[in-house]
Amino acid sequence: MLGGYFGKIINIDLTEEKVEIEELDEKLLKKYLGGSGLATKILYDETDGDTEPLGPENPLIYMTGPFTGTKVPVSGRHQIVAKSPLTDIFGEGDAGGRWGQGLKKAGYDGVVVRGRASKPIYIWIKEKEIKILDGKEIWGLDTYETDRRIKEKHGEACITSCIGPAGENQVLLASIMHDGSDARAVGRCGLGAVMGSKNLKAIVVEGTVATPVVDREALTISLKQEVPKIVEKTKGLKLLGTSGGTVMSEELGDLPIRNFKQGNWDKVEGISGQRMAETILKKNYYCGSCPIGCGREVEITEGAYRGVKGAGPEYETIGMIGSNCLVEDLEAIAYAGEMCNRLGMDTISVGAVIAFAMELYEHELLPKDSLGDIALTWGNEKAVIALIEKIAHKEGIGELLALGTKKAAERIGGIASEFAIHVKGLEAPAHDPRAFNSLAVGYATGNRGACHLQGASYFFEKTATMPELGYTEPQDRFATEGKGILNYHSQNIMGLMDSLKLCKFGIYGGINLTMMLEWIHHVIGWEMTVEELLETGERIFNLKRMYNVKCGISRKDDILPMRLLSQPRRDTGTGSNLAPFGKMLNEYYEARGWDDLGIPTEATLQRLQLKNE
Amino acid sequence: MLGGYFGKIINIDLTEEKVEIEELDEKLLKKYLGGSGLATKILYDETDGDTEPLGPENPLIYMTGPFTGTKVPVSGRHQIVAKSPLTDIFGEGDAGGRWGQGLKKAGYDGVVVRGRASKPIYIWIKEKEIKILDGKEIWGLDTYETDRRIKEKHGEACITSCIGPAGENQVLLASIMHDGSDARAVGRCGLGAVMGSKNLKAIVVEGTVATPVVDREALTISLKQEVPKIVEKTKGLKLLGTSGGTVMSEELGDLPIRNFKQGNWDKVEGISGQRMAETILKKNYYCGSCPIGCGREVEITEGAYRGVKGAGPEYETIGMIGSNCLVEDLEAIAYAGEMCNRLGMDTISVGAVIAFAMELYEHELLPKDSLGDIALTWGNEKAVIALIEKIAHKEGIGELLALGTKKAAERIGGIASEFAIHVKGLEAPAHDPRAFNSLAVGYATGNRGACHLQGASYFFEKTATMPELGYTEPQDRFATEGKGILNYHSQNIMGLMDSLKLCKFGIYGGINLTMMLEWIHHVIGWEMTVEELLETGERIFNLKRMYNVKCGISRKDDILPMRLLSQPRRDTGTGSNLAPFGKMLNEYYEARGWDDLGIPTEATLQRLQLKNE
Repeated sequence: MLGGYFGKIINIDLTEEKVEIEELDEKLLKKYLGGSGLATKILYDETDGDTEPLGPENPLIYMTGPFTGTKVPVSGRHQIVAKSPLTDIFGEGDAGGRWGQGLKKAGYDGVVVRGRASKPIYIWIKEKEIKILDGKEIWGLDTYETDRRIKEKHGEACITSCIGPAGENQVLLASIMHDGSDARAVGRCGLGAVMGSKNLKAIVVEGTVATPVVDREALTISLKQEVPKIVEKTKGLKLLGTSGGTVMSEELGDLPIRNFKQGNWDKVEGISGQRMAETILKKNYYCGSCPIGCGREVEITEGAYRGVKGAGPEYETIGMIGSNCLVEDLEAIAYAGEMCNRLGMDTISVGAVIAFAMELYEHELLPKDSLGDIALTWGNEKAVIALIEKIAHKEGIGELLALGTKKAAERIGGIASEFAIHVKGLEAPAHDPRAFNSLAVGYATGNRGACHLQGASYFFEKTATMPELGYTEPQDRFATEGKGILNYHSQNIMGLMDSLKLCKFGIYGGINLTMMLEWIHHVIGWEMTVEELLETGERIFNLKRMYNVKCGISRKDDILPMRLLSQPRRDTGTGSNLAPFGKMLNEYYEARGWDDLGIPTEATLQRLQLKNE
Repeated sequence: MLGGYFGKIINIDLTEEKVEIEELDEKLLKKYLGGSGLATKILYDETDGDTEPLGPENPLIYMTGPFTGTKVPVSGRHQIVAKSPLTDIFGEGDAGGRWGQGLKKAGYDGVVVRGRASKPIYIWIKEKEIKILDGKEIWGLDTYETDRRIKEKHGEACITSCIGPAGENQVLLASIMHDGSDARAVGRCGLGAVMGSKNLKAIVVEGTVATPVVDREALTISLKQEVPKIVEKTKGLKLLGTSGGTVMSEELGDLPIRNFKQGNWDKVEGISGQRMAETILKKNYYCGSCPIGCGREVEITEGAYRGVKGAGPEYETIGMIGSNCLVEDLEAIAYAGEMCNRLGMDTISVGAVIAFAMELYEHELLPKDSLGDIALTWGNEKAVIALIEKIAHKEGIGELLALGTKKAAERIGGIASEFAIHVKGLEAPAHDPRAFNSLAVGYATGNRGACHLQGASYFFEKTATMPELGYTEPQDRFATEGKGILNYHSQNIMGLMDSLKLCKFGIYGGINLTMMLEWIHHVIGWEMTVEELLETGERIFNLKRMYNVKCGISRKDDILPMRLLSQPRRDTGTGSNLAPFGKMLNEYYEARGWDDLGIPTEATLQRLQLKNE
C-alpha cells in the first residue's frame, strides 16, 4: 500500500469538454512529491517561453500533497500552478482552508484544467461525479456570493475555489479564492486571470473518501508528541495572527512604508494585530488540520466600514494596503482587504500597485483624465477603496493598474519604473531586504519573483531554526557571509513544504526535516534520508528555474529594484544598512551549482536527475 | 579684453541652408566655460525626451574650450555633443588632434549644425568664408580617403572632421573622425550617425587667427615651469602609449577578457604596448599643444595585415577588440582598429558588440542565417574583421549589431541581455568595476552611460592625485567608504576638463585645480577660486543629469550589468571582489544633493544656479 496519494489526477479539457482520470506512478511521485513539485512538472512539460498565459494552452493546475487530508499538522493546503500572466514566467500560489482536503475527500490528488470553455462554466467534482456545469448564474458574482450560491444549490458540504469579477476581467492581479468569507487566497501571480481566461468561474469539491495512511497508529503517536509543542511555540500566532508582528516589523525596519520609501512610522500601533484584537476581532480561524489557528475573523458593525464580516486582514494586507499606502485606519484596511477578497485580487500586489500609483500621483506622472475626481494622496483610504473597485473592473486608471506595477510602469515610460517595486514583475510583499540581508537574494531569485515565502530565509534570521542544517539559533540579519547558502537551503525546504503541502508557519512551530521524514514514513511508507529529502526540494526548485530559463530568465533578472538595492531606510531598525547584493548572489549561485548566467549546469541537472526533463 | 574665447559660434541650418554667427556673452561663458558645458546648455535648451536623435531637430554641436588654440598643455581638443541615437539620452565625445585648434584658427569657438541637407554635403569654414559644399564626390569614402580628397581639393592646411560609411549608414556605433590617418575619434554615443542623418559628410576648418590670451607672458612663465614636470611624469605614456598599461591592467583584474567573463589571460603580453613598441610601432603622435605624445603611429608592411599605416590601437581598442574577444594577434587588432577608423566606428562599442555576438554564438542564440559562413568563435580574428565590415554596412548580422548591445539584445529577447555589458545603452569600456570599486558608481552614473572618462575616478585609485581635494596618495581600490564622494569630485573635475578642453591624461602629468585656475587667469583673465571652479564642474554635470531626467532617467537606470555587479572575476588581481554597490551609490547621491530618485533637488539646482535652465 502506498499512502498519502490516490495516484489520480483529473484532466479536464474545457475546449473539448472532456474529463479523464490519469493514474500517476510512484516514481514520479517520489521525484516531485506532489503539490508544487508535481504541478511544476506538468507545466514544464506542456508549456514554454512562447505560451500565452491567457491562452487556452496554459494549463491551470490544482495539486494537493501526500499529507493533504491527513491529520499531519498544517497540512490543509493545496497549490495552484500556471504560467503567470502578470510575470510571463513560472507562476504559483497556495492556500490553506479546506479546498485541498475537499479534493482529497473526493478521491483525487489534483485537477488540471486545459483549454477554454465557450461560455462561463464551473466544475463540479464529487467523487466519481465530475461535471462541467453552466456558470451563467454565478458569473459576475463576488467570491463570497459565489460560494453562497453554490452552497445553496449543492449543499453546505461542498467547498469552492473560485474567481471574482477581477479574475473574470482578466485583471493581472486576480486571485483564486476559497472557502467563501473565510477567504483563503491563492493570491500571487495573477492566476485568477488564467482561470478567467478559461471562462472557469469555480471548481467545487465534495466527498467522504479518506486519504490513505500507511501506518495510522504510528502517525497518531508522532502527532500526539509533536502537535502540543507546535501549539505551544505558535501561541502568539493564535492570539494575534500574522499581524501580531506588525509593530515589531516596523521596529526592525521590515515593514514597507510609503511604497518602501519611508523608514519609521508612528501610526503603526493603530494597524497592528494587537489593535485588531482589541477592536474588530471576533475569533481566530483554523485551516484544515491546523493546530495553530493564525487566521482572523473580524466584524465591523458600525461606522463607514460596517458590514465587513469574515476573514480579517493578514500582516501582508496590513503592510501593503496599510503602511505602504500610509493608510492608518485599521477598519479601512479590513474593508479594503475584504473588497479584494470579494473581487478576487491579491492584497499584496493591489497594495503595491496603489502605492505605486500614489507615488506617481505625487510626481504628477499619472494620466490625469483617467483618475476622475480621485485625489490619490498618501493615506487617502477613500482613494484606495475607489481604486480597488476600478482595478477589478479595469475602469479608468484601473485599466492601467490592472497590469501590475511592472507592465504599468513600462506603459507610462520614463521614471515610472522607479516606483514599481517588483522583481521579475511580481510586486514585493511586506518584508524588506534592507532589514534581512538574506531576503535580498531570496527576492532576486524567487522563481515566481519577489516573494517572502518561496525562500522565507528571514524566518531563520528571526526565531526559527532548522537543526539538521546547523541553524540552531537566529542568524545575524545584517551579515553577508552565508546568506547565499541560507537561501539555497531555505528555498529547497520551502519548495519541499509547498510540495508535501505543509504550511511554512509550521517551522515557527518547530517542524523540521526529521519530522517531515517521519511523517512521510508513516503516511506514505517511504524511507528517505535528510539528504534525499533536501535533494528533492532542490530538484523542485531547479525545475522551476529551468522553466524560467525557457522563458528567457537569467542572472540579468535576478536583481532588486534600485530602491531596495541602494537606498537605505534610515530608520531605527536598519540605519543605513543595504544588503551587499553581489557577494551574496554569487555565493548563492555557487551553492546552487548554476553557471555564471544563472543557469543550472549540466552537472547540476545530472545530479538532480533533471537532465532529460 | 576677454581671452580664450572669440565669443562666436557658427549656427548652420542645413534644411534652410542658412549660416549665422552668434555672439556669446561672458556670463554664459563663465557659467558653462565652453566645450562640454556650453554644448550641453545648447542641447538642453533645444531638445528633450521626445527628440528623435536621428531627426533634423537634433543639433550636432562642436565646441572648443577657452584653452583650445593656446599653448596650455593637453589643450588640443574639442567636444561634440548631441542627443545619442545609441542610448536616446545625453550624448557626447571628445577628440584630440588638431581640429579644435583649426576651428579656433578660423576664428570661432564652436559650430552648431541643425536640420538636414537634402543631399550629401560638407561644410567649409575658413575664417569669414563659411560654405555648404556639395559632398557627392566624398560620400561613400572612408575617413582616411575623405581627408585625402579634401586636402587634394583645398590644400594641406585644412583639417577635417568627418564620418565614414558607418556614419552615412546611421550605424549606432558610428564615430566622427578627425585628422585623416592620425584618426582622432569622437567615438562614443553614435554621434557619427547623427552627422550621417544630416547628410553631413565633413566639417573642414582652416585659418590663421590666434586664440586671444590675456597675459601671454605670465602664461609662458607658468608653462615653462609646469610643462617639463608634466613631460617627466608622463614619459611612460610617451614611450608605450595607452596600451603600455595592458599587462598591468590584466594583473590588476581591470582588462576585459571574453566579454568581461574571464579573469586572467596568458596571452596579454602579445597584445601589449611593449609588444607594439618592439614590432609595428613607427613613432609616437602628439595632439595639438600636447607635451605627452601618447598617440601611436604604426605600420604593417607584410603578412595578412599589411597595409596598415597611421594611428595604432589604443589601450581601449586592444582591450575591447583584443582581450575582450580573445583576439591575441596584435597585428589583427591593429588592422581591425584601422578598419574601425576608416569606416568610422567606435572601437569600444564595436569590440563590445562583437564579444556580445560571440557569446550569443557560443550559446547558439544568434539568428543563424544572418551569419553566412562566419564561425563566430572566441578569438577568431577573421570573424572579427568580417563582422566589422558587416556592421558598418548593416549587412546580414551587421544590421542587428549596428544597434549596439542593448537594442540588439532587446530585439533578440530572452537571455541575450545577459551578454550586453552596458549602462544606459552605452557599452562598458576596457576597465572593470570589479578591479576599482569606485568605477562601479562611475559607470552607473555617467551621464552618457558606462564610461571610464566621465568620472575617471580610478585614476585616483592608481597613481593620480588631486591635492586640493585631499587626494594626495592613491586611494584603496577595494574600499567602500568615500567612493561615492570620490566620484562626485572626479566627475565634476572631468566635466570641467571637458569644458575647458584639457586632456584628462594631464592629471597623470600632475595638472591640478590650482594650475587650471592659474591658466584661466592668464588666458581668460578671470579670478576664480577652487570652490567656484568645482562648482562650475558640478553645475555642468548636473545640467547633463537634468537633460537625462527629461529623457526619463532616474535611479532605476543607475545600475551595472549583472555580470559586473555580482559575478567575481576570480583572478589574481581581484579575487572574489565585487563592488558593494548600494552603499556607494547612496553615498554618491547624498554627496550630489540628489533626491532618492536620483533627481537633483530644488536646493541643489538653486545652489548651482540651474533652477531656471
